[in-house]
Amino acid sequence: MSVRVKNMKKNFKIEQIGIIHSPYKTKNECPIQGQARPEGKGQIELFPEYEKGLETIETFSHIILFYIFDQAEEIKLSRLTFLDDSPHGVFASRHPCRPNSIGISIVKLEKRNKNILEVSEIDVLDNTPLIDIKPYIPKFDFREKACNGWTGNKEFRPKPLGRE
Amino acid sequence: MSVRVKNMKKNFKIEQIGIIHSPYKTKNECPIQGQARPEGKGQIELFPEYEKGLETIETFSHIILFYIFDQAEEIKLSRLTFLDDSPHGVFASRHPCRPNSIGISIVKLEKRNKNILEVSEIDVLDNTPLIDIKPYIPKFDFREKACNGWTGNKEFRPKPLGRE
Repeated sequence: MSVRVKNMKKNFKIEQIGIIHSPYKTKNECPIQGQARPEGKGQIELFPEYEKGLETIETFSHIILFYIFDQAEEIKLSRLTFLDDSPHGVFASRHPCRPNSIGISIVKLEKRNKNILEVSEIDVLDNTPLIDIKPYIPKFDFREKACNGWTGNKEFRPKPLGRE
Repeated sequence: MSVRVKNMKKNFKIEQIGIIHSPYKTKNECPIQGQARPEGKGQIELFPEYEKGLETIETFSHIILFYIFDQAEEIKLSRLTFLDDSPHGVFASRHPCRPNSIGISIVKLEKRNKNILEVSEIDVLDNTPLIDIKPYIPKFDFREKACNGWTGNKEFRPKPLGRE
């Protein structure tokens, strides 16, 4: 393995490409997993200059939204959750307060109208900046033998942000 | 839905948190889906200052790597693939040449040694900048009823970058 060259840490600029509109105005209203509240509908507004990038997206039933947790607070590399009594590293969790606050959510694509995608099963705060969309493709994105790790068979409902 | 306010497009700074080491030095060597070549092993080198963030990650069998496609070329919002004769939008595909060249890969976690993760089923170029790691959690990340969209039942092997 090559050795890290000092000061070779790179920075990258990420540009907002749209806005996620959802019924959830505050962290406390927002479900942790969108599947748990399938009635939660949202609109994904892609800025019009990117509309051509949506061509044939309506052939998919589910898409993966990439966004910035712009309401995230202090980053802690390890923290207690309320699921068990052990601390878990931020890379072993989906916690929003992480280095490079990037979030992903799999949502159900209901309808496309030009640059607007109507979705359900959303778990994202209203007005969250969108940075990418990828199709959810079960034949690639499912690992049959994967385990749920420390989250086990518990229903995973960490407290919303700011309710530690 | 609120109306977009002109010039409200935000930029975000993303910082490299590590390096993905893999056996694939060129785009032509790199498999499109790591599952297809399970013997492909790699090392995920998280910069030592983030090591605490890995706490309990070894309880998971699979993790999701987030990285920057730093070898990506010209961005096209829509392009032909060699799977069929129709163009597909970049947000309806996993193509690396996309706005905000963020890639994700689900890999199998074999072993952790401090800040180094040994993984298999890798499909990432050697020396790719790492920007996040999240656990793959099948109970959240699997959508039983999802369809494969335009990729259908075909084996999805788009030509590697630079081989259009």
